[in-house]
Amino acid sequence: MDFSRRAMLGAMGGLAVGGSLAAMSGNVIAAPAAPEMTGGKDGLFDQQYGLFGWKPKKIDDIPGAMEVAYKGYWYKGLGCGYGAFYSIVGLMGKKYGAPYNTFPYSMMEVFKGGMADWGTICGALAGAASAFFVFYGRKEANPMVAELFRWYEKTAFPIYNPGEAAQGVKGELSTSISNSVLCHISVSRWSYETKLAANSKERSERCGRITADVCKKAIEILNAKIEAGKDWKGALAKQESVTQCGACHSKGKMSDIVKGNMDCAPCHSGSDHVQNKFVNHP
Amino acid sequence: MDFSRRAMLGAMGGLAVGGSLAAMSGNVIAAPAAPEMTGGKDGLFDQQYGLFGWKPKKIDDIPGAMEVAYKGYWYKGLGCGYGAFYSIVGLMGKKYGAPYNTFPYSMMEVFKGGMADWGTICGALAGAASAFFVFYGRKEANPMVAELFRWYEKTAFPIYNPGEAAQGVKGELSTSISNSVLCHISVSRWSYETKLAANSKERSERCGRITADVCKKAIEILNAKIEAGKDWKGALAKQESVTQCGACHSKGKMSDIVKGNMDCAPCHSGSDHVQNKFVNHP
Repeated sequence: MDFSRRAMLGAMGGLAVGGSLAAMSGNVIAAPAAPEMTGGKDGLFDQQYGLFGWKPKKIDDIPGAMEVAYKGYWYKGLGCGYGAFYSIVGLMGKKYGAPYNTFPYSMMEVFKGGMADWGTICGALAGAASAFFVFYGRKEANPMVAELFRWYEKTAFPIYNPGEAAQGVKGELSTSISNSVLCHISVSRWSYETKLAANSKERSERCGRITADVCKKAIEILNAKIEAGKDWKGALAKQESVTQCGACHSKGKMSDIVKGNMDCAPCHSGSDHVQNKFVNHP
Repeated sequence: MDFSRRAMLGAMGGLAVGGSLAAMSGNVIAAPAAPEMTGGKDGLFDQQYGLFGWKPKKIDDIPGAMEVAYKGYWYKGLGCGYGAFYSIVGLMGKKYGAPYNTFPYSMMEVFKGGMADWGTICGALAGAASAFFVFYGRKEANPMVAELFRWYEKTAFPIYNPGEAAQGVKGELSTSISNSVLCHISVSRWSYETKLAANSKERSERCGRITADVCKKAIEILNAKIEAGKDWKGALAKQESVTQCGACHSKGKMSDIVKGNMDCAPCHSGSDHVQNKFVNHP
């Protein structure tokens, strides 16, 4: 009797353990399914949930996400890549918990200023592209990135206006078309055309708003992709310059020498900006 | 008596709960400390462990890590960014478990081909820079990235030779100095100088080896940073061109119009490569 009672209490304890674990897992990881390791030999390249194992979720409130992207840009100065990425994957974490909420989001600060201030890829684009790749491998994600990047090259930014919620400067901002996905060209061209300094509050505000613009386009692409699955295709054609240069310089052609899909024109059309600036300049 | 006995068993059950949770957490997340959410109002920007809350660990076996970087480059074609990032953060996950092993590593495929084949930032650099930012915010990580990127601009790649373990082509490969952190310039210049196609097996092999080279330099920087803490400083000075152009074009100067720290010369010294290629070419 004592024994069976102890056993029963033990069993109840066991249930309590399970209950506590489930309850606690809401804070710890709240895994919707048991994580599994599915890497190579000796556990090398093991990955919880397997490669591209996190499932994408549609985001219905796009204006709300844009607001988060813009706020994220300013949040502790973490910048464009953080704002764009958080407004997609972070919002899934907020709504659905794990695994999305286990991500070390602040690492997306790496993209600030075109990657640690080097002016390479636009950080908002990099954050959004990284979000696509959380869910999809290159065969499916590359066309999503191409759609986003081609749209960016040809769009006059910024579009978004946070109104009274502006954290840099309020009101309309002058726009420019970058013709490039590179932060250096995008920012410098905007500064050149608007006469506003690259290190001004206006320029910061511009990039915060672009973060929201990129968030919007990226979520539209992601939602459409989730809807259409493998059948999804982008709407934007390859840039004219890439097609033209690729006639000789792409895979299998007479001079297979080029890597990339960036618009060739900004750097290879002999503009004044790429002439020798080290002699008799200005 | 019954009551106190029940209370005691209950307490034991409580201990068992703690023990079970700790044991199970080895499979689920194995958190070394309780994750905490530390974001903004309404849980926006909440992040487990807080911003930059994952602790960096020194990696002692650098040749081993380089091997992993090289293998990672080839693993299911996930590429340079994956190889570089996994050889740093992934190895911490393999050795120390959570939180490092909760990362969705395959997302680093985003950097393949300079970000989804767009030829922007070199993916190996992007993967390594992203690894730095897992642990450090911009004030500490930007100098680490600058050291890595400046070294890359001036180094003749590839250096690493996997010997019999080569997965693309075996033997020595011709080298070139990119003078640029951009994939497009790095690859195209190498192809131009070596006469080996940008879409050749040799070029893939080159990039796999560079992934190991970048891994080595990145771990040296990370280990030194962990050792020296806030006192760590890079050894490489700002490039001459960036200093020269910055005299007029940086923050607070007469023409504050430039974003970035890339070597200016490849695009702004009037080389033949950036002349008008759309007229009378070749």
